[in-house]
Amino acid sequence: MDASYRRSGAGGGSAPRSVEEIFKDFRARRSAILRALTHDVEEFYAQCDPDKENLCLYGYSNEAWEVALPAEEVPTELPEPALGINFARDGMNRRDWLALVAVHSDSWLISVAFYYAARLNRNDRYDPAPIAPVPLGLVLVSLLFVPC
Amino acid sequence: MDASYRRSGAGGGSAPRSVEEIFKDFRARRSAILRALTHDVEEFYAQCDPDKENLCLYGYSNEAWEVALPAEEVPTELPEPALGINFARDGMNRRDWLALVAVHSDSWLISVAFYYAARLNRNDRYDPAPIAPVPLGLVLVSLLFVPC
Repeated sequence: MDASYRRSGAGGGSAPRSVEEIFKDFRARRSAILRALTHDVEEFYAQCDPDKENLCLYGYSNEAWEVALPAEEVPTELPEPALGINFARDGMNRRDWLALVAVHSDSWLISVAFYYAARLNRNDRYDPAPIAPVPLGLVLVSLLFVPC
Repeated sequence: MDASYRRSGAGGGSAPRSVEEIFKDFRARRSAILRALTHDVEEFYAQCDPDKENLCLYGYSNEAWEVALPAEEVPTELPEPALGINFARDGMNRRDWLALVAVHSDSWLISVAFYYAARLNRNDRYDPAPIAPVPLGLVLVSLLFVPC
């Protein structure tokens, strides 16, 4: 999976360009992370080998997850997830380690959504549906409380 | 400025533990970043020397900013800002480069706030003041639209 895949939106296409597209991207990436930390947890755990180099957990917009080295080119085109999660694996209780990865991953998902949102203009930032315009941040974050 | 300073809340104390403390931390870090990118921009620009190693822009809870190497220990105790901002400086228009740093910094500020917020429990996440309980995310993000 090359770097362009990490940068892009669903299916390797362009980056999300509306509040709705950003939320879809967020939801897909979140779904990938959730699977890595629940259904696929044995595979995820095994991939986070502390003897390997600095590893990160990526969730992509096609709902796939990957444990991989960080992007080589810096500054990166998107915010990066927490680096070196594998180094903490064997020094902690398994449950605590998974919680640590989950918290860092949640924080990363939010940072990616807000990074994409920075390119929206004044009109893009308002959802046309409600009677009163709603700032993007409220739309994005309120959606966090809706079951995905 | 040692690593414990980066991790901690205002004045090197403990991490913020309520919605209000998290917002204060966010506001102070944001104020630091804003100053680096406006009033102190010449100094900031000069410090981001492309011949140095990977540098990051940190904003701290005492409203100080710093251009520094990333934390050595990984995984870090807090989400890290964009790495290697100095490498992009001379290959871009100055205004575009500052905009790139600003977008990455905004995204980082949000990720730090949400990272701190993950340790709040169900009660902590609701602001007791309003008549109807307001989820933490809405409080934090709505405050982004209030002039700091």
